[in-house]
Amino acid sequence: MLSRRFYSSLSKKTITPLTSIKHPDLKRGPYKKLETKDVDYFHRILSKNQVVTETDPYNIDFFNLYRGSSKLCLFPTSTRQVSSILQYCNEQKLAVVPQGGNTGVSGGSIAVFDEIVVNTSKLNQVRSFDAISGIAVVDAGMVLEALDQYVAPLGYTVPLDLGAKGSCQLGGNVSTNAGGLRLMRFGNLHGNVLGLEVVLPDGTILDGLSALRKDNTGYDLKQLFIGAEGTLGIVTGVSLLTPKRAQSTNVAMIALDSFEHVQQAYVSARDELSEILSAFEFWDHDSVQLVQKTMLQGQSYPLEAKKPFYALLETQGSREEHDMEKLEAYLEKGMTQGVIQDGVLAQDSTQLTGLWQWREKIPEAITRSGTAMTYDVAMDIRLFPQMVTDVKAHFEERGLLGSRYSNIIGFGHVGDGNLHIMANMEGFDQHGQEEFDEFVFNWAIEHQGSISAEHGIGIHKIDYMTRCKNPVQLALMRKIKTAFDKNGIMNPYKVIPF
Amino acid sequence: MLSRRFYSSLSKKTITPLTSIKHPDLKRGPYKKLETKDVDYFHRILSKNQVVTETDPYNIDFFNLYRGSSKLCLFPTSTRQVSSILQYCNEQKLAVVPQGGNTGVSGGSIAVFDEIVVNTSKLNQVRSFDAISGIAVVDAGMVLEALDQYVAPLGYTVPLDLGAKGSCQLGGNVSTNAGGLRLMRFGNLHGNVLGLEVVLPDGTILDGLSALRKDNTGYDLKQLFIGAEGTLGIVTGVSLLTPKRAQSTNVAMIALDSFEHVQQAYVSARDELSEILSAFEFWDHDSVQLVQKTMLQGQSYPLEAKKPFYALLETQGSREEHDMEKLEAYLEKGMTQGVIQDGVLAQDSTQLTGLWQWREKIPEAITRSGTAMTYDVAMDIRLFPQMVTDVKAHFEERGLLGSRYSNIIGFGHVGDGNLHIMANMEGFDQHGQEEFDEFVFNWAIEHQGSISAEHGIGIHKIDYMTRCKNPVQLALMRKIKTAFDKNGIMNPYKVIPF
Repeated sequence: MLSRRFYSSLSKKTITPLTSIKHPDLKRGPYKKLETKDVDYFHRILSKNQVVTETDPYNIDFFNLYRGSSKLCLFPTSTRQVSSILQYCNEQKLAVVPQGGNTGVSGGSIAVFDEIVVNTSKLNQVRSFDAISGIAVVDAGMVLEALDQYVAPLGYTVPLDLGAKGSCQLGGNVSTNAGGLRLMRFGNLHGNVLGLEVVLPDGTILDGLSALRKDNTGYDLKQLFIGAEGTLGIVTGVSLLTPKRAQSTNVAMIALDSFEHVQQAYVSARDELSEILSAFEFWDHDSVQLVQKTMLQGQSYPLEAKKPFYALLETQGSREEHDMEKLEAYLEKGMTQGVIQDGVLAQDSTQLTGLWQWREKIPEAITRSGTAMTYDVAMDIRLFPQMVTDVKAHFEERGLLGSRYSNIIGFGHVGDGNLHIMANMEGFDQHGQEEFDEFVFNWAIEHQGSISAEHGIGIHKIDYMTRCKNPVQLALMRKIKTAFDKNGIMNPYKVIPF
Repeated sequence: MLSRRFYSSLSKKTITPLTSIKHPDLKRGPYKKLETKDVDYFHRILSKNQVVTETDPYNIDFFNLYRGSSKLCLFPTSTRQVSSILQYCNEQKLAVVPQGGNTGVSGGSIAVFDEIVVNTSKLNQVRSFDAISGIAVVDAGMVLEALDQYVAPLGYTVPLDLGAKGSCQLGGNVSTNAGGLRLMRFGNLHGNVLGLEVVLPDGTILDGLSALRKDNTGYDLKQLFIGAEGTLGIVTGVSLLTPKRAQSTNVAMIALDSFEHVQQAYVSARDELSEILSAFEFWDHDSVQLVQKTMLQGQSYPLEAKKPFYALLETQGSREEHDMEKLEAYLEKGMTQGVIQDGVLAQDSTQLTGLWQWREKIPEAITRSGTAMTYDVAMDIRLFPQMVTDVKAHFEERGLLGSRYSNIIGFGHVGDGNLHIMANMEGFDQHGQEEFDEFVFNWAIEHQGSISAEHGIGIHKIDYMTRCKNPVQLALMRKIKTAFDKNGIMNPYKVIPF
């Protein structure tokens, strides 16, 4: 049975499998148990180094959050091999969990019981890149950053940017519908993925690797696999539209004395920076204190004014002097109008990185401060401060703030309506985790928000699907799952509650 | 039986139903025939003016291309009414064709036999608009231009722009996955539609009107309805992300002496105009001559150089002087390098409209010159001139150019890889139409292109689905259709060949 444990620097070395975290009642499905003859079969169709029975590294995810009990991990090197594997598993009713870079944070790529891991790491080639259209066709196991490095000298960039870019793979990005920092500028994967090659649960290869920007011929099947978290098949190839790489990048950090001013600053950034605005991130003052205490000791904060909120604006454009002129005018106007209380503009790439780190180091600051709890909700941005305030008040009223929970902070992507709430918990306490989940997820659902803006459902949020989706939506999802995966072998127990 | 006839100014008034165009073998499905008691039922649940038996206007599409034989057209005013209608039709096995602005050009919104038309024109309200996020939630029958006019004073614009914008409806745009002129800038509807409300074939209301920019909670069901051409249900509500309205728009027209130079001009426009580039259209010299002869007699062409190709570039940005500086530098560089042979830059909005008309009037010029044939293919842009040359050569070799066919021209959206080929046919000749279809569609399929970039399949291209889609894709489409529409009542005979 899969276990869930929150990473902290303390727990990293002592992590042990827990047997009944989150889903004590969950029963193993009616799948066949792996036998020696199955392993023998895979040895016959694959090379020695593609059949791995030392599965420990593939039973724990990147952040040490989950631990599975898979006994076999397969590393296909071709779509044809993926097909042979799934055909056999489907015939034998062996359950399968697809795994890419294993950087997901909802447990989607870890076996819940003893599913066979099919890892795409050895499917990692660029199949083609068209320097006129910017369309890249790549294997699913291509690492996001590796693709970015491949297209960079040709003047292109990948349309998504994640903290995990050095490890996450395109197939996994597609399967979780990864968002990231550039979504407000380049849009989501439903718009940027032009085609997919997918091996269906029975081993059939769905060849839909179109490299066309427009194609209205029947149902757009690829869309179903984007965000399906590997429950409908294994993505083996991705056709992706890449945008031109910006020739000029600028960053400003601003201080604001209310969340209303954060909103105003965001709205006028969309007006005045418009086509060059590439990120608008915010965080609260508690986040600054935490980063300063745990990560950037001795470094002074770039802004003197101590304010409740800060924001980072990034512009990406094609002409440095135009972009700077717009950004300076924006800052000047905001300060004159009293919306922006203080601001600083990076003068070189070192300063640019220096400003970004105050935003980027927040998650790590939490994980270094104890057992970390991380939430990724989407909602009307006007609700952001209310949600953080309500969470704090709820646990303070119960006398749990400062004792069981601490460091409740809010930050995130204003441009996408995506709030991250993080907090620390004293020790590792399953009940404490569930109590926090319950309050945060219910708050989001009650306020017409989403319990998962970009991290997906996996196993972590499966219990909340019946609350955040209506019965009609759930019924259609089940119909689709059944139509695509009759035997239910693909990534069972995840995403869709049966 | 649905008839198809190509519009020309001559045929407009004399159009008569033809009984066996394109699909002489097509048989009416096992649907119930409309009875008086059915009409009585609809009279009971709807007001008098919502039940129309004078169906002529709804049996012919906007361009007089198709003629159906529907005996009943219903105009629901609420989602609840759409639900009651479909529940009844599903129980009674009455076939239904959804209809919006009826501006489609593939026959998707016209009854093939006697299907009941459910027209969304009376569902035309803005449900909400959020001036901070730019998210509009509207009824499916909202006219595209009306929504643009609604959001304009609030600083926003719709992310798609079509010739039919004054008549087409959001629900129809979604159902055909409409592309249009702004796609290269704002992306497609799979990225911009945030949520949908759909009435499923059995009358169940799928409430998925999310107004969140990010939401990764289970399968993204709305994606299936985008481009399904009404075969899976009737879209009744749309949540759409609208971008900020540009504060500055500029247009240049350039002359180029080869298609290689068109490509080079496009690539460097993406480099140098980058984030402000909003359109890059091209057309050939034959298009100019045709427009000059039929539409803009007496007007001199803005460019003196007579060249095989022309292109129109549009920029949309937030600062006029910056945009002009970039555009002027781009033109100067292109001319210095010998890529651009001649160019002109609009100095005011009258000139801007004047330049655009040489591109926008091409389709009308063809329809005024005889029976028009129009194609909408997508492919690698390097193939554009080859396709036009091959089409001309094919019919010239057979002695048909100048006799049966004339005015074969090529133009389209370079930025989207979307080529329009249009031609005139002498009189209206079904065989001539099919012969042209056959050559153009097969050419596109053989060159890994799409037979429909944005116009959809409808009834016109249904015979080509088995050639342009592989059996795996077709099988999945059929599975989805069956899972959603057990009785097959929704827009039968269209999109998916059974």
